[in-house]
Amino acid sequence: MSDIAVTRKFAELIAAPKVGSSSAARVEAIRTLTNYVGCAIGGAQHDTVERAVRGLCLSHEGPAFLFGRPERMDPFHAALVNGIASNVYGFDDTHLETMIHPAGPVASALFAFCDLRSTTGRAFLDALLIGVEVECRIGLAAGAAHSKLGWHVTGTAGTFGAAAAVGVLAGLDPERMTHALGLAASQPVGLRRNFGSMTVSFHVGRAAQNGLTASLLAEQGFTASSDSLEGDSGWARVLSPGFDSSFLLRPFDPPYEIERNTYKPYASGIVTHPAMEAAINLARRHMIAPSDILEIQILGNPLVRDLTGNMRPKTKLESKVSIAHAVAAAVAEQSGGPNQFSDRALHDPVIAALRERVRLAVDESVARDEATVSIRLASGEIVKEHIRHAVGSLDRPMTDQDVSDKFRSLTDRLLSPEQQARTLSLCGQLDDLPDVSQITRSAATRKQMVS
Amino acid sequence: MSDIAVTRKFAELIAAPKVGSSSAARVEAIRTLTNYVGCAIGGAQHDTVERAVRGLCLSHEGPAFLFGRPERMDPFHAALVNGIASNVYGFDDTHLETMIHPAGPVASALFAFCDLRSTTGRAFLDALLIGVEVECRIGLAAGAAHSKLGWHVTGTAGTFGAAAAVGVLAGLDPERMTHALGLAASQPVGLRRNFGSMTVSFHVGRAAQNGLTASLLAEQGFTASSDSLEGDSGWARVLSPGFDSSFLLRPFDPPYEIERNTYKPYASGIVTHPAMEAAINLARRHMIAPSDILEIQILGNPLVRDLTGNMRPKTKLESKVSIAHAVAAAVAEQSGGPNQFSDRALHDPVIAALRERVRLAVDESVARDEATVSIRLASGEIVKEHIRHAVGSLDRPMTDQDVSDKFRSLTDRLLSPEQQARTLSLCGQLDDLPDVSQITRSAATRKQMVS
Repeated sequence: MSDIAVTRKFAELIAAPKVGSSSAARVEAIRTLTNYVGCAIGGAQHDTVERAVRGLCLSHEGPAFLFGRPERMDPFHAALVNGIASNVYGFDDTHLETMIHPAGPVASALFAFCDLRSTTGRAFLDALLIGVEVECRIGLAAGAAHSKLGWHVTGTAGTFGAAAAVGVLAGLDPERMTHALGLAASQPVGLRRNFGSMTVSFHVGRAAQNGLTASLLAEQGFTASSDSLEGDSGWARVLSPGFDSSFLLRPFDPPYEIERNTYKPYASGIVTHPAMEAAINLARRHMIAPSDILEIQILGNPLVRDLTGNMRPKTKLESKVSIAHAVAAAVAEQSGGPNQFSDRALHDPVIAALRERVRLAVDESVARDEATVSIRLASGEIVKEHIRHAVGSLDRPMTDQDVSDKFRSLTDRLLSPEQQARTLSLCGQLDDLPDVSQITRSAATRKQMVS
Repeated sequence: MSDIAVTRKFAELIAAPKVGSSSAARVEAIRTLTNYVGCAIGGAQHDTVERAVRGLCLSHEGPAFLFGRPERMDPFHAALVNGIASNVYGFDDTHLETMIHPAGPVASALFAFCDLRSTTGRAFLDALLIGVEVECRIGLAAGAAHSKLGWHVTGTAGTFGAAAAVGVLAGLDPERMTHALGLAASQPVGLRRNFGSMTVSFHVGRAAQNGLTASLLAEQGFTASSDSLEGDSGWARVLSPGFDSSFLLRPFDPPYEIERNTYKPYASGIVTHPAMEAAINLARRHMIAPSDILEIQILGNPLVRDLTGNMRPKTKLESKVSIAHAVAAAVAEQSGGPNQFSDRALHDPVIAALRERVRLAVDESVARDEATVSIRLASGEIVKEHIRHAVGSLDRPMTDQDVSDKFRSLTDRLLSPEQQARTLSLCGQLDDLPDVSQITRSAATRKQMVS
């Protein structure tokens, strides 16, 4: 890092009002938003979110709405709670090259801002684009060494993304944007040590809150260092060995990083998805009853074994990163949503029996988004399915219909049919909305009596 | 770090209700508290705090009071604002071995908690003791390498101290205390790169807020890793090369770290203090008028030059770390409070002229808390003062009277005489207070009409 004025130049790029001309990026931004809102509503009443709200929602109220919940909070804690909810089922979006979940930090901060100050959908969409661009560029600049050091990149890079996005909506000039980045640099969150606990989702929400705080303080002239990224004792030196600032200084032109965003069809570790899709296809096509199955053989990329090789999960969090559970549940229930990675599914005797019959083989020649599943039946027949590119991969993205269906399945239990249809429709019309708080109002649930 | 279960064992020590039996520590805790409250009131209307409040104090109100201000906020942001205010004049307490300012993170979190739930002064004092113990032990374990890496130890260690202190008041069991430490570990704040900007004081307040959040979530069963300090990708490996966990695992017996806390008599870098004291003594004893002075010669420890060698400060922040300004203002105004490190003082022609006449010599044989000042007068006479141990050092602590006088001088402009006397008296009676929110109520200013 011998670069001069990296933070300042990056802030100038962010603050320059020129992004938003690419229609491909705008279309993807609406898909990103729809996936985010569905995940945030779907996770809103998860135990992790309940505990956070009980800890945070004290005797104060605020102007900001929560997705899928009745409480109203101050915008900072609304950003935190919505961010937690969006991640809690592990069903959120993924920028595959950095493994960042882009929308959680950025959109959570933006929606909280919009409940404070009336904001058009067009302005929101521009800010979402830039926020995602900023966090992914920070993630690309930081590279694998940053994660290897122990940082959770969605939290650390997400704080910058949220600050940039809110800074754009607040109209920060380059100097104040520089200070916002400096305030973001001093609030990294969090450590990979906390993976596997509720705190991993806290990272996503806290990044949103920290970024929102950074830009709202910078807006008031609160100052930070002008070289918080590249300077001595700055973010790059302290948190990111080998930081490559060239990623930050490229012009903000299409294609944007948001165009490389992906959405998960299933609520489990992404490397389980090709085999799950194959398993669901087989079960549906051949109408296979679990009791007919003698063995399920999977051939996948070695990462399937490395990341999800636990064949006997003991908790629901472990079941999300167990290829045996993922495929067993997919065959038994022909689905792969949060319900298939619940305590109920973990202890279901049919799924438990199927887990025992799953065998995994891996081969370097199998791509990450590829898998073959063979099921040997009691009849002696063997049925087989090869997935070349799993749905949700860059080569075979979820269709708009898939994204809408996912939204509906995530929100079915939580919103009324009218509310669900209205919220989904508002997300689709984002670019024309006069006031984005229409979405947060539509997606909040009715106020209950406090017990 | 090959230690097993460091985090868990540390949490067990923190959660064991046995601290508080040392009367020396309890006496020092009251001095620490009084100094903190004076600093927080004194800084409450500083420009840095004004900007923070404008950015944070939106359309929501909460139950928590702010020192020296009329607004009421949610407890999390009250902790943030009070923490910023306590540090903003650089007049807060110092644990010399770690250079941590202990009270800012811990007391700010505790007072916010006390505005939520009625708390006795005795319980508060126990929690303050433990919080300071925890943050100083983390600082000792982290050592100089942690600061050298780029971290601001008051923020990083302070987050643990605030979490522990609030956790004690909330009665967390060892398991929940372990999770609170894990949540604290994932929220380090901040980078030394931001020294010299408003963000340095933000670190102090944010540490309070982060620790408060950690323990209030952990209280609700929000989970984190059980080995967040010592584990792979844990706090020690990521933030603290050479972390020595033996500091954490010593029994919590007297003497406590709070007994090594010190208070600044002057609002400037601590290494300027011996020379300022000498200068004030000379000016008073010999009734020296600035116009009589030809030259001021200082002999001090080499750190005076290394840390405060800027003889021509351009901003008020720079004036606080300029030995020339500190001594010139001390001679001219026979005082060293925030008023002597203001824009007014920086541009005062008498002080500016005196700054030009200050000469600094340093010598390894002069101790850090020692200095000699010689003033050559127009009459030809040379007057000289040697300070062996500066007031405020460990060898010559401020007296209780000094601490009270400092409180009064910090709060004179901001509280009515009755309010000032009552608040100071409540701090002194802490151990017998039925409800600590008597202090926060007493120290808030009257509500003004919102313009």
